[in-house]
Amino acid sequence: MVAGLPNPRSASVSVMPKALLFDTFGTVVDWRGSIVEEGRAWGKVKGINLDWAGFADRWRAGYQPAMDKVRKGQLPWTKLDVLHRLILEEILMEFRMMPALSEEEKDHWNRVWHRLKPWPDSVPALRRLKKKLIIAPLSNGNVGLLTNMAKNAGLPWDAILSAELAKHYKPDREAYLTSVDLLGLKPEEVMMCAAHVGDLNAARSFGLRTGFIHRPNEYGPARQADKASPGQFDVVAKDMLDLAAQLGT
Amino acid sequence: MVAGLPNPRSASVSVMPKALLFDTFGTVVDWRGSIVEEGRAWGKVKGINLDWAGFADRWRAGYQPAMDKVRKGQLPWTKLDVLHRLILEEILMEFRMMPALSEEEKDHWNRVWHRLKPWPDSVPALRRLKKKLIIAPLSNGNVGLLTNMAKNAGLPWDAILSAELAKHYKPDREAYLTSVDLLGLKPEEVMMCAAHVGDLNAARSFGLRTGFIHRPNEYGPARQADKASPGQFDVVAKDMLDLAAQLGT
Repeated sequence: MVAGLPNPRSASVSVMPKALLFDTFGTVVDWRGSIVEEGRAWGKVKGINLDWAGFADRWRAGYQPAMDKVRKGQLPWTKLDVLHRLILEEILMEFRMMPALSEEEKDHWNRVWHRLKPWPDSVPALRRLKKKLIIAPLSNGNVGLLTNMAKNAGLPWDAILSAELAKHYKPDREAYLTSVDLLGLKPEEVMMCAAHVGDLNAARSFGLRTGFIHRPNEYGPARQADKASPGQFDVVAKDMLDLAAQLGT
Repeated sequence: MVAGLPNPRSASVSVMPKALLFDTFGTVVDWRGSIVEEGRAWGKVKGINLDWAGFADRWRAGYQPAMDKVRKGQLPWTKLDVLHRLILEEILMEFRMMPALSEEEKDHWNRVWHRLKPWPDSVPALRRLKKKLIIAPLSNGNVGLLTNMAKNAGLPWDAILSAELAKHYKPDREAYLTSVDLLGLKPEEVMMCAAHVGDLNAARSFGLRTGFIHRPNEYGPARQADKASPGQFDVVAKDMLDLAAQLGT
């Protein structure tokens, strides 16, 4: 049982963190559902009928390979907004949408990542957590993207942290440790929270605590979402409200 | 008159900014009054009678010379928390307080800058401004200091920007332009807001818009606060609520 915490479910956390860092795409916001929803509404107006789930999946599939080029030094540091735009150009051709879009529309589409909608429990859980702990994103999304996303979605962050501030994409070491240093904390005082096992394994290897949040519908029926067993991370939560409860908030 | 803005007082602003960056020490929070208040309360408990206004003024007087060493390259990049602590060590000796303080107490005192109180109009004005614009600090305070300050004082920032992210103290060019770039904006889309003419003159020279906020009591009776004439900056406001009104929020 954690000292000073009334909730017996917090027993699994041996020392309370001072700050929580959240992965965003998939963990806090529903990228796939948001892109499908915006695509369908836009398609209706424009008379364009498309497999929007396929469009979203294809865009997201380009995400890791694009960041890999930066991680391996094949590209200099490049903001995620710019990588998203490079991938968008490709998929607009693949989906035969190129002639239909003006430059302004392409830019607007690229910023769909600034307008992603939160999972229903994200905002209530963050409000609870914020009362006792520092909460911030630690995303591969750039600061501007995350700031606009927070404003659109009502995410009550205490600060905006990003891989951009380290000029290193997760899971590079610098992304985690720069965030910890900016908060003036030690790695063990910070918990990385994510729906992705790879992100958490990396964070743990650099000394951070870890909180898993299950997001079974992140990829829709297209792909199985990550799972975690009890004890695999400092906290294993079935959703973000469960994480808030387990941390005694 | 600005298009779309109902408030005729916004006539002085030719193009509305998308984001406002705020100097914090003196502009958003009352550093002198806060240190005096905390000093008096602490002194009562400890039985220490001190000229707390003099103590605050002396601490603040060490601020520019310490940053100058970083600006001129005599010191490598050093967080403000660390500079504050170096100055504190000096003034504890000057004020003959050295034997009275444990390491824990010194650290707590150093973090008084994380606990500064806002001027009475700051939080209501920021809440109004936040509805229409991105609001963030752009302070020489480090990210951790500003994050804790926001949490303690209830400052509803959309992001925490700091000289620390550029590793250059204001008024160095990099401090302003790194913040603009992190927001994904152009300099002319961003307004620097401050009670200090030097900060605003620098921001303007790098292409930002400028908003002056008069804080007549920043230095108490010790020193005259900066003033600005109408037209000297894009907005010249008598306080932060006046700034909010002039920006049509």
